[in-house]
Amino acid sequence: MLKLYWWPKTRAQRAIWMIEETGADYELLPLDIDDPVARADPAFRAVSPLGKLPALLYDGGGLADSAAIGLWLADRFPEAGLAPAVEDPRRGRYLWWMVFTTGVIEPAVAEKLGGWPASPRRNGWGDYDSMLGALEQGLAQGPWLLGERFTMADVMIGSTLHFFRQFGILPENPLLHAYADRCVARPAFQRALAREAG
Amino acid sequence: MLKLYWWPKTRAQRAIWMIEETGADYELLPLDIDDPVARADPAFRAVSPLGKLPALLYDGGGLADSAAIGLWLADRFPEAGLAPAVEDPRRGRYLWWMVFTTGVIEPAVAEKLGGWPASPRRNGWGDYDSMLGALEQGLAQGPWLLGERFTMADVMIGSTLHFFRQFGILPENPLLHAYADRCVARPAFQRALAREAG
Ligand SMILES: N[C@@H](CCC(=O)N[C@@H](CS)C(=O)NCC(=O)O)C(=O)O
Ligand SMILES: N[C@@H](CCC(=O)N[C@@H](CS)C(=O)NCC(=O)O)C(=O)O
Repeated sequence: MLKLYWWPKTRAQRAIWMIEETGADYELLPLDIDDPVARADPAFRAVSPLGKLPALLYDGGGLADSAAIGLWLADRFPEAGLAPAVEDPRRGRYLWWMVFTTGVIEPAVAEKLGGWPASPRRNGWGDYDSMLGALEQGLAQGPWLLGERFTMADVMIGSTLHFFRQFGILPENPLLHAYADRCVARPAFQRALAREAG
Repeated sequence: MLKLYWWPKTRAQRAIWMIEETGADYELLPLDIDDPVARADPAFRAVSPLGKLPALLYDGGGLADSAAIGLWLADRFPEAGLAPAVEDPRRGRYLWWMVFTTGVIEPAVAEKLGGWPASPRRNGWGDYDSMLGALEQGLAQGPWLLGERFTMADVMIGSTLHFFRQFGILPENPLLHAYADRCVARPAFQRALAREAG
C-alpha cells in the first residue's frame, strides 16, 4: 500500500495525480509543512532529506521529489502504460521531459521572476526564453509530449503549467493553455482534486 | 552503437564516464559548443532542444541531459548493475539522487554564487545549506550513496563534486572530498579522461 505525505496547496497534488493515473491504492498522510515539528519528523525526513512534499512510502522504502516519484511509479506500474519501456526508442525523450520541470522550468522561472542575471551557456537550465522555446517545440504536434501517447511526463509538465496558470504566470500562448486544458481534463486529475478536497 | 555529442571541458565528461561504467561501445561526435552553426545543427537540436551537451544518440532515438542519460543507460544495461531494479526497495533512493544534481545542487549553487535571495520553502531546491546538509547526510555512511553498492547516482553526484572541486567551490568538508576522491579513482572515470584526451 502506497502512502503519500501530503498537504493542501503544495506540489503533493502532482503526486496524487500521478498515483491516480497508475490506478494504485494509496493513503494520504497529512503533514503540515508550516509546522516545524511535523517537518522534523524522523520518518518523514528519512525519505525526504530536504523536508519537502511530496514524499512517498512504499513497501520497504520511499522517496521524495515529484520527478523521482513519477519515474518510480511509472516503471513500477507498467500496466498503466505511463512510461515507454526501457527498450522503446521513445524512452529517451520521455526521460528528458521527466527531468525538465525541476532541472529546467523551475530554476528558469525563478531566475526570471527574481530578475537574476541569466547565464544560459553555463546554467544547466539555459534561460527562460530557451525553456519556453523547448516547451513550445515539444507541444507543437501534440496532443501529448510523446504524440498520441499520454505519459507520466505529461503529468510533470501539465501540472507545472497548471500551477503557473493558477499563479497567473503562464505566458499567453494558446498552445500552452490548450495543453494545460487537456491535462486538467484527465479523469485522474479530477479524481486527485476530489481526493484532496476530502 | 551509442554516439555521444561531446566537447572538451563540458558536462559531456559525465556522460562519457557513465557509458564507461556500463561497458558499452560508443563513438564521440565532437560538437563545438561555442560555434553557433554547430549548435544549430538540426540533428543535434532534435535530441537536445536546449542546444546543450551532453546528448546521446542510440538506435531509434536519443536524448539530452546528463541526469536523463544516466537514467536511460543504467536501465538499458542492467548487467552493469548501475541501478537497483524497479522492484528493489532501494530504487526510490536511487531515483531521488539521480535528479538531485540538476534539480537541487545546480540551482542552489547558482543562487549562492549569484548572491540571489534564497526562498527555501518555495524553491524546489530548498537552499544551499539544506542541499549541503542532504549531501552530508547521504554520504555519512558510505562508501557510496546507496551504501556498499556503487550506482549511476554516484556518477551524477561524484562528477558534480569533482567539477566543483576543480572550480574551487567544493566546501572544505572531509566527507565530501573523500567521496570525490573515491569517485575519480573509479577505473571507468580514468578511462573517460583518457578517451577525452584522445
Ligand atoms: N523538487 C521537489 C520540490 C518540492 C517542494 O519544494 N515542495 C514544497 C511544497 S510545494 C515544500 O515542501 N515546501 C516546504 C518546505 O520546503 O519547507 C518536487 O518536485 O517534489
Ligand atoms: N542539465 C544539463 C546541463 C547541460 C549544460 O548546461 N551543458 C553545457 C556544457 S557543460 C552546455 O552545453 N552549454 C552550452 C550552451 O548552453 O550553449 C545536463 O546535466 O546535461
